[in-house]
Amino acid sequence: MPPRKIIIDTDPGQDDAFAILFALGSPAELEVVGITTVGGNVPLPLTTLNALKVIELAGRPDIPVYAGCPAPMVRKLVTAEYVHGETGLDGADLPEPRIAAQSEHAVNFLARTIMDAPEKALTVCTLGPMTNLAMAMAMEPRIVPRLREVVLMGGGFFEGGNATPAAEFNIFVDPHAAHKVFHSGVPVTMASIDCTYSAQMTPQWLDRLRATGKRAAIEAANLADFFRQYGSHKFPTDARPIHDACVTGYLLAPEIYEQRDCHVTVDIVSPETIGMTVVDWWHVTGRPKNCKVLRRIDPPPFFELMLERISALD
Amino acid sequence: MPPRKIIIDTDPGQDDAFAILFALGSPAELEVVGITTVGGNVPLPLTTLNALKVIELAGRPDIPVYAGCPAPMVRKLVTAEYVHGETGLDGADLPEPRIAAQSEHAVNFLARTIMDAPEKALTVCTLGPMTNLAMAMAMEPRIVPRLREVVLMGGGFFEGGNATPAAEFNIFVDPHAAHKVFHSGVPVTMASIDCTYSAQMTPQWLDRLRATGKRAAIEAANLADFFRQYGSHKFPTDARPIHDACVTGYLLAPEIYEQRDCHVTVDIVSPETIGMTVVDWWHVTGRPKNCKVLRRIDPPPFFELMLERISALD
Amino acid sequence: MPPRKIIIDTDPGQDDAFAILFALGSPAELEVVGITTVGGNVPLPLTTLNALKVIELAGRPDIPVYAGCPAPMVRKLVTAEYVHGETGLDGADLPEPRIAAQSEHAVNFLARTIMDAPEKALTVCTLGPMTNLAMAMAMEPRIVPRLREVVLMGGGFFEGGNATPAAEFNIFVDPHAAHKVFHSGVPVTMASIDCTYSAQMTPQWLDRLRATGKRAAIEAANLADFFRQYGSHKFPTDARPIHDACVTGYLLAPEIYEQRDCHVTVDIVSPETIGMTVVDWWHVTGRPKNCKVLRRIDPPPFFELMLERISALD
Amino acid sequence: MPPRKIIIDTDPGQDDAFAILFALGSPAELEVVGITTVGGNVPLPLTTLNALKVIELAGRPDIPVYAGCPAPMVRKLVTAEYVHGETGLDGADLPEPRIAAQSEHAVNFLARTIMDAPEKALTVCTLGPMTNLAMAMAMEPRIVPRLREVVLMGGGFFEGGNATPAAEFNIFVDPHAAHKVFHSGVPVTMASIDCTYSAQMTPQWLDRLRATGKRAAIEAANLADFFRQYGSHKFPTDARPIHDACVTGYLLAPEIYEQRDCHVTVDIVSPETIGMTVVDWWHVTGRPKNCKVLRRIDPPPFFELMLERISALD
Repeated sequence: MPPRKIIIDTDPGQDDAFAILFALGSPAELEVVGITTVGGNVPLPLTTLNALKVIELAGRPDIPVYAGCPAPMVRKLVTAEYVHGETGLDGADLPEPRIAAQSEHAVNFLARTIMDAPEKALTVCTLGPMTNLAMAMAMEPRIVPRLREVVLMGGGFFEGGNATPAAEFNIFVDPHAAHKVFHSGVPVTMASIDCTYSAQMTPQWLDRLRATGKRAAIEAANLADFFRQYGSHKFPTDARPIHDACVTGYLLAPEIYEQRDCHVTVDIVSPETIGMTVVDWWHVTGRPKNCKVLRRIDPPPFFELMLERISALD
Repeated sequence: MPPRKIIIDTDPGQDDAFAILFALGSPAELEVVGITTVGGNVPLPLTTLNALKVIELAGRPDIPVYAGCPAPMVRKLVTAEYVHGETGLDGADLPEPRIAAQSEHAVNFLARTIMDAPEKALTVCTLGPMTNLAMAMAMEPRIVPRLREVVLMGGGFFEGGNATPAAEFNIFVDPHAAHKVFHSGVPVTMASIDCTYSAQMTPQWLDRLRATGKRAAIEAANLADFFRQYGSHKFPTDARPIHDACVTGYLLAPEIYEQRDCHVTVDIVSPETIGMTVVDWWHVTGRPKNCKVLRRIDPPPFFELMLERISALD
Repeated sequence: MPPRKIIIDTDPGQDDAFAILFALGSPAELEVVGITTVGGNVPLPLTTLNALKVIELAGRPDIPVYAGCPAPMVRKLVTAEYVHGETGLDGADLPEPRIAAQSEHAVNFLARTIMDAPEKALTVCTLGPMTNLAMAMAMEPRIVPRLREVVLMGGGFFEGGNATPAAEFNIFVDPHAAHKVFHSGVPVTMASIDCTYSAQMTPQWLDRLRATGKRAAIEAANLADFFRQYGSHKFPTDARPIHDACVTGYLLAPEIYEQRDCHVTVDIVSPETIGMTVVDWWHVTGRPKNCKVLRRIDPPPFFELMLERISALD
Repeated sequence: MPPRKIIIDTDPGQDDAFAILFALGSPAELEVVGITTVGGNVPLPLTTLNALKVIELAGRPDIPVYAGCPAPMVRKLVTAEYVHGETGLDGADLPEPRIAAQSEHAVNFLARTIMDAPEKALTVCTLGPMTNLAMAMAMEPRIVPRLREVVLMGGGFFEGGNATPAAEFNIFVDPHAAHKVFHSGVPVTMASIDCTYSAQMTPQWLDRLRATGKRAAIEAANLADFFRQYGSHKFPTDARPIHDACVTGYLLAPEIYEQRDCHVTVDIVSPETIGMTVVDWWHVTGRPKNCKVLRRIDPPPFFELMLERISALD
């Protein structure tokens, strides 16, 4: 079976870097057709630079990177330097990329590539605000039935939110984009924070990553060390989730994820709940199921697989 | 120390009956000054009749019962016969009450009694939609600083909702009333479904209740058997929460409850989240803490205490 | 034909005073059963005092005055001293009332009186936020089918709002109350600002009022002179509307009002439009007509009638 | 002075056709750089075809036409065949266009052209839902300070709405797009229905248009005759507004428009008022003025000018 073709839409972000490295270390299963960037964790110039740095680190400067929307569809941009540091990739000293981003806009790249690919051939993985994909759907709605699947990191339900009491950061930043994608009719799989919190990266695992002696693995561990500083108010130990990497993990090993088909919508109305993913986990609304909701991961196989794949780089 | 004076505002409901019996079986600690009824689980004529039946069962027809608002402040009434049966107390065969409800309206009773009582002398426990208390606050705002505390069963956060994906039934039925009370400045303690789900009543415990041979205990067990039918889609065993009883439990043994002071608001805006209690459990908003949020109960002492007190009746 | 029985619910306010004097000067057509007061233009203690002063001025201290809710059902009170002055009746030097307000709460008075009166015998005229009437409907919904009509001053449509670009003051102050009344099923007649702006009081008319030499008429003119100070940003001459008086005018001479049956709702959701009366004047929604919307008055007969009736006092 | 460069974004629509012909007949003042189309009055394939037919009719097939977004940014498309007929240009028998639309997407054309033009050189005129322009702003926010002005037909205030009691059709169809443009910081001029209703096209004027004997003028009159069928519930005579043409009129003769700088926002929250332009005409909010609001036109010079210019075609 040829590898599954994916486009990674991302706002790196240390955990985005893990997701990308994890995917690039899995060439037998995943073919990264392109990377698109969006303003999110940090502003767009940084997320684009960071994406370029990550593929450089992975030894894959051949993968085209497309800069996308610097801000959400309707709202003002909110960023999260308090989590990721000023650069978005604080913690590691990554080399400057030798290759620049493509001149084509990410939204056009998405629309064009999906229209040109065979039907159901492409999967889009969004690791940040879903602006680029929703914009592509608005410009060219015919891409919707052509997509195989959208797998996203975002949302939450029994864990609530992290940007606000009700909303997870990625969805909160561009709730209108998320609303559009969830209601587009495309098959959506959501790696919520309920899912990502269930697989926490420990210092011991990072030691193992570092002990591989591989450059990408070592820098990934450095990124993780910075990223782990945030969250002490919430997590009782020094283990931490590595959110976006759960998207890659799902593509490689869906069987280790607890999942349920549910109706999911996104609030775009109330100041108290805007950006909340309203997940009908218990099927009380009778509304049609439009999302595969991932809830829990089995951590040991997840971390074994990620260790293997990131260490395979370089 | 004299017993703590409480008014129970209720829409029985089997679990309301447990809460009332639990309180009436604890006269050394709790003095039930009056019971007020509201439309909620079933319509007002039934909740009023049911309250009268419960005090009759408890041998306490001396406690005055006041019928209150038949419907929410602003929205139309929603009821829950699918949980409680047509009567609201399906499952037991309770005797007709010999005493009628008082002629005074519950809202007037609340306002008058709180104004006449010494400052900080009275606690109001709401076991249903918070209509009556919010209406009393609207008619006579001076009651707010006179109240000692409001202890309510309602809301949810990490468990989501039960009436909708986002909203718990009691708050969903009258979100405006709940919003008013939470923002009134009164000390509020919330026994959310996160709390009530943590203490599940088992068939074994009900057997012990029945085995006491006491009439009230036996009928309570009968009520519980009906009530336990609902929830099989959500709960994996035949144990079930007994929501409203957690309010009484808190008044008697607060030390067995995990609790945290948080900012809580109620959404009254979005059709997707109306009636949701937005609980800032992780203190991410910086807003002032206006609620003591109960999260978990230690089940063994809770059920031991309830068994002891309900069995003390008659 | 016996006079029509009305209850005036009011927050005086100079224009409320006109409405009351206009009604009390028309005993052949209108019997004022009672006056209820609400927090609105100024706080409740002042509106109650002002109502007492107005009946004193009219020589009708026999009319019972009942103080009602000091604040809206759900929101915080907003007042309008910038229009009415600190007392609410700035501009005239009215005598202190010799009679106090009744001890019964206005909400209870409304519920009791409507329940006790023959069906369809009573009309409630609200001249301020509709809190008291909505509260009475919440406490005792059986009053709804017993009312003959609710005639209110409030709302706007082609004139927009005055408290905000979208909302008129009375509805803005308690949008939830207005929403409840409009959707209760009671026959509602709305004297919007579209209506009240169409009948503007001129200095010449006030001179005629003063020239009657009657005390009530002279003091009314004094009140009007203060009231006319506000509005110069909006009205090109020194003529001004006398809003609440249009309610009395409608009761006496409905034939001089342009009117249309429409669906009307009140926004209680958006921060931009909360308190707006959404009037389907052109019948584009297909929703049922729940309100008689008054749009324009024929000014000459209106002012002739008001002059005659206010001058009849004393 | 060279002619002012404009891009016309449109969803023809008979009144769009008038606006375009009016502009194309004014080459000394206006240079139409391109026409972009959007789904609105009728679906995108028809609005694009119609734009091509109109430039064909005007003898200007050299003007490039770019098809844009078929549907709004977030909501589902609503169309208005009940006004415009199934084709959008019912009433005239226009020749099939000989030139096809450009292959570039309208959103890309807008972003590219505005970025490439000198600063403040371009004006965008939107005659339909503002989707394309808002999308271009989302893809490339740097266009915002480069634009000279956005002149739009849409919204309403003292006339209320026409799609709903609160919302005018163009803004109602894509409220999120309009919200984005109004809050972008670009200079916005709004030809609301308050403005367009003030200049009503009479049968007599259409006779004069026809009497010119020019093909474009005759077909425009035919379009107008169809368009005039709608509105009899609202307009007392057989004169009718010709909405979009007011945008062209403003560009040519702003001095015949009553205008005021105001704060304007668009409701995107309440189901009752979504798509309403909330215009602070009376400056009660204290918010910054972000829009030049056109209220009334002096009809005689407007219609003289339009007659002259449309007749100049061919």
